[in-house]
Amino acid sequence: MKIGIFTVLYNELKLEKVLEYVSKLGYESVELAAWKGSTHLDLDNVLSGGATKLKKTVEKYGLSISGISNHLEGQLVLGPHDASTDDFFKGTPEEKVKYGTERMKKTAEAAAALDVSVVNGFIGAPYWGAWYIFPPAYEKIYEEGFKMFAERWNPIFDVFAAHGIKFAHEVHPQEQAYNVETTEQAIKAVDGRKEFGVNFDPSHFVWQGIDPVVFIKKFGDRIYHAHAKDAEIVKENVATSGVIPTGGWMRQGRGFRFRVVGWGDVEWKRVITALLEVHYDFVLSYEHEDPVMSREDGCEKCISFLKSLIIKAPLKQVWW
Amino acid sequence: MKIGIFTVLYNELKLEKVLEYVSKLGYESVELAAWKGSTHLDLDNVLSGGATKLKKTVEKYGLSISGISNHLEGQLVLGPHDASTDDFFKGTPEEKVKYGTERMKKTAEAAAALDVSVVNGFIGAPYWGAWYIFPPAYEKIYEEGFKMFAERWNPIFDVFAAHGIKFAHEVHPQEQAYNVETTEQAIKAVDGRKEFGVNFDPSHFVWQGIDPVVFIKKFGDRIYHAHAKDAEIVKENVATSGVIPTGGWMRQGRGFRFRVVGWGDVEWKRVITALLEVHYDFVLSYEHEDPVMSREDGCEKCISFLKSLIIKAPLKQVWW
Amino acid sequence: MKIGIFTVLYNELKLEKVLEYVSKLGYESVELAAWKGSTHLDLDNVLSGGATKLKKTVEKYGLSISGISNHLEGQLVLGPHDASTDDFFKGTPEEKVKYGTERMKKTAEAAAALDVSVVNGFIGAPYWGAWYIFPPAYEKIYEEGFKMFAERWNPIFDVFAAHGIKFAHEVHPQEQAYNVETTEQAIKAVDGRKEFGVNFDPSHFVWQGIDPVVFIKKFGDRIYHAHAKDAEIVKENVATSGVIPTGGWMRQGRGFRFRVVGWGDVEWKRVITALLEVHYDFVLSYEHEDPVMSREDGCEKCISFLKSLIIKAPLKQVWW
Amino acid sequence: MKIGIFTVLYNELKLEKVLEYVSKLGYESVELAAWKGSTHLDLDNVLSGGATKLKKTVEKYGLSISGISNHLEGQLVLGPHDASTDDFFKGTPEEKVKYGTERMKKTAEAAAALDVSVVNGFIGAPYWGAWYIFPPAYEKIYEEGFKMFAERWNPIFDVFAAHGIKFAHEVHPQEQAYNVETTEQAIKAVDGRKEFGVNFDPSHFVWQGIDPVVFIKKFGDRIYHAHAKDAEIVKENVATSGVIPTGGWMRQGRGFRFRVVGWGDVEWKRVITALLEVHYDFVLSYEHEDPVMSREDGCEKCISFLKSLIIKAPLKQVWW
Amino acid sequence: MKIGIFTVLYNELKLEKVLEYVSKLGYESVELAAWKGSTHLDLDNVLSGGATKLKKTVEKYGLSISGISNHLEGQLVLGPHDASTDDFFKGTPEEKVKYGTERMKKTAEAAAALDVSVVNGFIGAPYWGAWYIFPPAYEKIYEEGFKMFAERWNPIFDVFAAHGIKFAHEVHPQEQAYNVETTEQAIKAVDGRKEFGVNFDPSHFVWQGIDPVVFIKKFGDRIYHAHAKDAEIVKENVATSGVIPTGGWMRQGRGFRFRVVGWGDVEWKRVITALLEVHYDFVLSYEHEDPVMSREDGCEKCISFLKSLIIKAPLKQVWW
Amino acid sequence: MKIGIFTVLYNELKLEKVLEYVSKLGYESVELAAWKGSTHLDLDNVLSGGATKLKKTVEKYGLSISGISNHLEGQLVLGPHDASTDDFFKGTPEEKVKYGTERMKKTAEAAAALDVSVVNGFIGAPYWGAWYIFPPAYEKIYEEGFKMFAERWNPIFDVFAAHGIKFAHEVHPQEQAYNVETTEQAIKAVDGRKEFGVNFDPSHFVWQGIDPVVFIKKFGDRIYHAHAKDAEIVKENVATSGVIPTGGWMRQGRGFRFRVVGWGDVEWKRVITALLEVHYDFVLSYEHEDPVMSREDGCEKCISFLKSLIIKAPLKQVWW
Repeated sequence: MKIGIFTVLYNELKLEKVLEYVSKLGYESVELAAWKGSTHLDLDNVLSGGATKLKKTVEKYGLSISGISNHLEGQLVLGPHDASTDDFFKGTPEEKVKYGTERMKKTAEAAAALDVSVVNGFIGAPYWGAWYIFPPAYEKIYEEGFKMFAERWNPIFDVFAAHGIKFAHEVHPQEQAYNVETTEQAIKAVDGRKEFGVNFDPSHFVWQGIDPVVFIKKFGDRIYHAHAKDAEIVKENVATSGVIPTGGWMRQGRGFRFRVVGWGDVEWKRVITALLEVHYDFVLSYEHEDPVMSREDGCEKCISFLKSLIIKAPLKQVWW
Repeated sequence: MKIGIFTVLYNELKLEKVLEYVSKLGYESVELAAWKGSTHLDLDNVLSGGATKLKKTVEKYGLSISGISNHLEGQLVLGPHDASTDDFFKGTPEEKVKYGTERMKKTAEAAAALDVSVVNGFIGAPYWGAWYIFPPAYEKIYEEGFKMFAERWNPIFDVFAAHGIKFAHEVHPQEQAYNVETTEQAIKAVDGRKEFGVNFDPSHFVWQGIDPVVFIKKFGDRIYHAHAKDAEIVKENVATSGVIPTGGWMRQGRGFRFRVVGWGDVEWKRVITALLEVHYDFVLSYEHEDPVMSREDGCEKCISFLKSLIIKAPLKQVWW
Repeated sequence: MKIGIFTVLYNELKLEKVLEYVSKLGYESVELAAWKGSTHLDLDNVLSGGATKLKKTVEKYGLSISGISNHLEGQLVLGPHDASTDDFFKGTPEEKVKYGTERMKKTAEAAAALDVSVVNGFIGAPYWGAWYIFPPAYEKIYEEGFKMFAERWNPIFDVFAAHGIKFAHEVHPQEQAYNVETTEQAIKAVDGRKEFGVNFDPSHFVWQGIDPVVFIKKFGDRIYHAHAKDAEIVKENVATSGVIPTGGWMRQGRGFRFRVVGWGDVEWKRVITALLEVHYDFVLSYEHEDPVMSREDGCEKCISFLKSLIIKAPLKQVWW
Repeated sequence: MKIGIFTVLYNELKLEKVLEYVSKLGYESVELAAWKGSTHLDLDNVLSGGATKLKKTVEKYGLSISGISNHLEGQLVLGPHDASTDDFFKGTPEEKVKYGTERMKKTAEAAAALDVSVVNGFIGAPYWGAWYIFPPAYEKIYEEGFKMFAERWNPIFDVFAAHGIKFAHEVHPQEQAYNVETTEQAIKAVDGRKEFGVNFDPSHFVWQGIDPVVFIKKFGDRIYHAHAKDAEIVKENVATSGVIPTGGWMRQGRGFRFRVVGWGDVEWKRVITALLEVHYDFVLSYEHEDPVMSREDGCEKCISFLKSLIIKAPLKQVWW
Repeated sequence: MKIGIFTVLYNELKLEKVLEYVSKLGYESVELAAWKGSTHLDLDNVLSGGATKLKKTVEKYGLSISGISNHLEGQLVLGPHDASTDDFFKGTPEEKVKYGTERMKKTAEAAAALDVSVVNGFIGAPYWGAWYIFPPAYEKIYEEGFKMFAERWNPIFDVFAAHGIKFAHEVHPQEQAYNVETTEQAIKAVDGRKEFGVNFDPSHFVWQGIDPVVFIKKFGDRIYHAHAKDAEIVKENVATSGVIPTGGWMRQGRGFRFRVVGWGDVEWKRVITALLEVHYDFVLSYEHEDPVMSREDGCEKCISFLKSLIIKAPLKQVWW
Repeated sequence: MKIGIFTVLYNELKLEKVLEYVSKLGYESVELAAWKGSTHLDLDNVLSGGATKLKKTVEKYGLSISGISNHLEGQLVLGPHDASTDDFFKGTPEEKVKYGTERMKKTAEAAAALDVSVVNGFIGAPYWGAWYIFPPAYEKIYEEGFKMFAERWNPIFDVFAAHGIKFAHEVHPQEQAYNVETTEQAIKAVDGRKEFGVNFDPSHFVWQGIDPVVFIKKFGDRIYHAHAKDAEIVKENVATSGVIPTGGWMRQGRGFRFRVVGWGDVEWKRVITALLEVHYDFVLSYEHEDPVMSREDGCEKCISFLKSLIIKAPLKQVWW
């Protein structure tokens, strides 16, 4: 199992500077953002000959690329298509769908060009809030989202298939597949095709009360990538704020917040044990969205914490 | 404290039949639905001279009307205005707003005509799912919902004020004010005007991890009505399904479901104690949305459970 | 759902006296012991013309027979065949097997004669303690017990099938099928034949840490009978005594003990809800093995407790 | 086991009125306060011929006297002798000791005159706050309190012994014996003489984190009387206020408060089971110090709650 | 945030020896005791020219002085003035008050001389045990303690103000301000003057059930110093001994005891997170009162434990 | 306290290779298996002159021998004598008893020859499953096992006594003494003779719900050796599988499994604190039976985890 890092948190820094910093800390791989605005990976550049140079740059620091990530443009495929996604791409809903679709195909091609096997991202959701079945009509409406997912993403997955790339959807709020059950529905909607799998991130299960280990055991070999991110039910706030607070991430009264690995409620020993049990042996990619401590504190604490937990090999047989 | 019942669960039965049934069981008041489709209260009829007859009918069974409820048409004021609300009123968003607004004003008038002091309902939400701040633009978008609330509801509350009626918003998912913090924001948005208060219903706090007692103590004299409904984090399912499952209410695998009072996780002794502490002494109105047991089982179990918990009077002073 | 009682706890009293007592308390059915030594049902007498009289006697008190129970003689079929079962029948292991087998067939015949559809009992276990896999050879040895179960019980179940009777094994320590997993193995061993099902008794799951609701949902329509018995992890003792204490049932220091319904750790509302969900609507038969309170205290407390929990009918559809 | 009531909560009412009220509610015995100011029992009157009349009055309502209680004057024997006890008796420390001593002897005599076997009360404490060992010298100072207890109370217990009366100390904050360990020390200080025992009241153990069942099993046959009082760690307050809040009992922010039986954290089924196990079969005397609900609410709720929990007889032997 | 140590635990060693030892272990600052008997700081010496030398000595080992502590003589200002404080100063109550007052003023002057900004200590309490409101008169008596606090400490705080020094009261049992609520009362009693703040020590909140994070958020910028001390509710003892056991600190049966940081129940990640949230960035000063392990074990374990938890910088803004 | 390792997990490797490996990792002592089949210690060889060489070999790597372990042959003394122990020694029950007895005596002699003071092992149990008292006759039958223990083991212990060696029984399922209470019974059965003590291994208490600290405090100076092994109640499985699952140790659905130290539910800080409190200062010998991670992962993680927890010395006296 490698310990990696999602470099987007230092998007304002040159990639090489980031690579140098994280390799010194002991990270073994990087996950690179591919959406417009990412300074670390430019899809057009990669697809017009820049792939080798980028790959070499990464390798120069003893690192590999665990995955190409394109959450923002993937979101456009299903939506929402209201003003909230204007920062990703401004246009009519139809234009957003079209743009998102093309960009995701390009992302797959870029991954292939970089010899990276996985693209991480979001599938989007036409109206995620419809999960709560009131008005009653939302039951049918939410169901229909799965059909729309199959219709719009199957052509994208065909491109992935053509290049031998896998898409790892990050199961996350605001996505059509946001928990165990909807992930099962999404997989079923695309007839279980193997291009579609998950980017396991336990931080989104903490506040839902879902056991990440149940998720791991349920999806097993469909886990194509994993994020090392933690989350905290904030004890002094939760009775007032609840687990679905709205408002800014740095607001202090929130009942839920993300944390650096080891500072939240994820039981990492159970998670790492379960990943071993399902034979996942790829990467734990650190993502920092901790509203309390600095990025540097996070980078140091994460690697130090995870290093001592990595299991190198499974037991082969009972010896006793 | 009276024990009442929201009669809409027997909407297919004649009101008198329901009144007879519930009065025999020991209920002391009724809450009547006012939206189109309710067979127990017709706004137009009430406002065109039918009020006295309706009131008499209720009184004939030794009952009073605790509140007039119009959740569905209130929802139209802020939305959502997508297909989900077509069952409430079919039209363009503008038509829905206009219709909802008019109906809510009428509901206040009807309450006045019936000598009922409280109208229960929903304020609606333009896009409730935006509470989760991704895409990041949702932070600002959700905030703007409170301004829209003030703009659209203040004129309605003026009519309420003119008739001396209070509006009790049921703090509930899919509403702009769905937890403690957003309720505080909503109250602030209308400058704390007294026509706007809450219909306390603890079942919506259970899965959010909010302590209903914190809610009670925070809003105190702004609690104008209360629902006796329970909710259950379903132990055998929650690790898989989580607390925000989607899909039909009767689906057995759900991690959360409503229950009849006493069959869920609400700590009723704490709730009733806190209501006494803030001097709420009006009604606990039973609402049955239990996907397991029949309505009759619920009606019987609820009254039997609550009877033994009602506190008749507070302690006046320390005697010891 | 009927509330019944296993009359063996008053084996020293004439059956009619017991029937009179329990019917007055409100019990609706009786479960009768059929092993040698039971004073309430004599297999030979039933099979030689006494069935009608016994049935009439029971009906005279407004009661029905929910099941015939023969735990002790069923145990002899698989064992143990050491001195521990000498009180049930004294003989060589072979003689014990033969005797047990014949008696179980007779019990099925008696059930048929009495128009009773279920026989409760134990299947036995050659060496139950082998469940703990040390010495390592016990893994294979325990497995073989399931084959032995199929070999010895299939002929008995054939007799059950011939008479249209079902056998409800009480999942219990000292039995080859003592938890969820071994019950699944046992069902598989007899190819899922329908004569073999379970007598659900949650008291045996409490100390194992098994959720009775998981058991109910797993076996659903194979639950043929149910015991209303509770069990308590004794808080003041468990840190010292553990959940598998040995020694007499009345020893005060035990970390685990049986209790009258409502006085232990079984969550009865969850259990009754789950039984409704799997459409079990037959009997909860009270069994008193509470080492603290008298049988009369138990009989009164059990009926009073369960009466208020029985759900008469399921919800047919979402009305809201 | 009888269910009784400590009548002092209605000290402003005539005794007969109270007796009539509580007997109608189903209470079976009364506990009468004997300190100066009690309107229900006057020591001098009892000792000068009034005993028979008082006893008859109580019996007229089908009640018995479970115990004579004199907490306030017992406190004077050890103190505190600062201004806090001036309401009990104003005087120098020496005068307070002398007065308290004489009154406790008289209370024993009055009990004898009334054929009552138990006197409840407090032994007092010279400086209870010294339990916390800072300044370090408090370790020795607190220890010396036990010697003082023996010196001052042994002569009083001699009078109790002479009349065959037992003294039941209520283990309580502000008393030299306030928990399990200090009660053991106090018993040892008087060489285990049988006149000295306890009035079991679980409400004082709740906030200390002491398991009342441990107390019951430790002191067994030295439990001479018992109070039915409950206590609540107030969930919404405790993180702020803690379990040892100061200030008035009706202050709403308190982290701890007394409650009516069944409304607090005492596990009454465990308590009643344990009392049965140690063969305590005398009285549960209701004491109302609930700062929320009225005395009448308490009186009704207590009897209704306890009635269903009383166990009439222990199991004599394992029948199964 | 610096990690410091309260050197008094090695009072029997020369200061330089201690400085050498702790600086080698990695500690960054020292807290020095100033009461009579302290061998590490002599007030008279400091005030008569010894300040520079002492300061230099500390700096020689790369350390700074985080605070001057005078708990024992501070206690004398309010009391108790019984025999328990004779070890601090022997005299009449009046003499104790006077002595304590003078010494605290001197301590402030010494701090100024040493360029140290904070004096830690206790404010004392006339009779701490009066927090429990029985006898009822204690309610008023405890209240009066706050007036006495203002009267006696305001003149002392004037001296602090004159020298620009802050007083950090350690919120602690046996002090007038011992929890959140009484600390608020104390601050109010001195009209919120800024010289009076707190020395945050979570070990005193553990057994009270107070959440240290609530304390931190409530007092925020009034936290002038902090102790790194842990405390343990001793699981195997608490049901018997409770959280307020008396007797020696090394007695093994205690239900509560202090522990070295990381060996108790304080949730240090939550504490350190909250200190960051209120912008406390000064010192965590290790205090060893663990009755189990040696001082050396404690010194080593504390620094090793805290080092990995220190957060160097807060997040400045949401980057994601 | 030394950190040791039970070398049997590398039985397929030459002893020296193991010694080299573990000494490099930081282990300080080894525990050697003595049963037939152990490649690290051959009883006959040791007793015929090989002792010195073996001892030297161990010392060469800076290690000592903490104990000689002979669990398998000890088991034969009491049984079971069915096919399960044929792998240990094939023969009639009488032959197994005789063989086991002789081997245990030899093991004591070998310990003496090697200057090792402790032999670890199992005492066996005639029929461990009889602990559950059904059939009722098992109560008496289990009791008789203690007599058999005394009869068969006393002669063995005589040999131990003659050589000044202690026997440390590992309290474990399948043994006559498997929990606190049965260990007390076993000690009593041999009149408390000092040759008989325990090998403390907390992993066997986890699933029983026994607090290892209670065990430690109960047996104190009779703890002659200790295993560092952890155990996990597997959260995602326990509701289905329970704490007494049968079947292979590597089966993934098990509700209970052993784990490497620090990866299970044992509270090691409490355990190490308690061992210090009873003055146990010998060895924590690592035993790997973790069905998930490789032996090497375990060896590294164990030493790293325990190193930081070892307490070098107890506190001698309260200094504060």
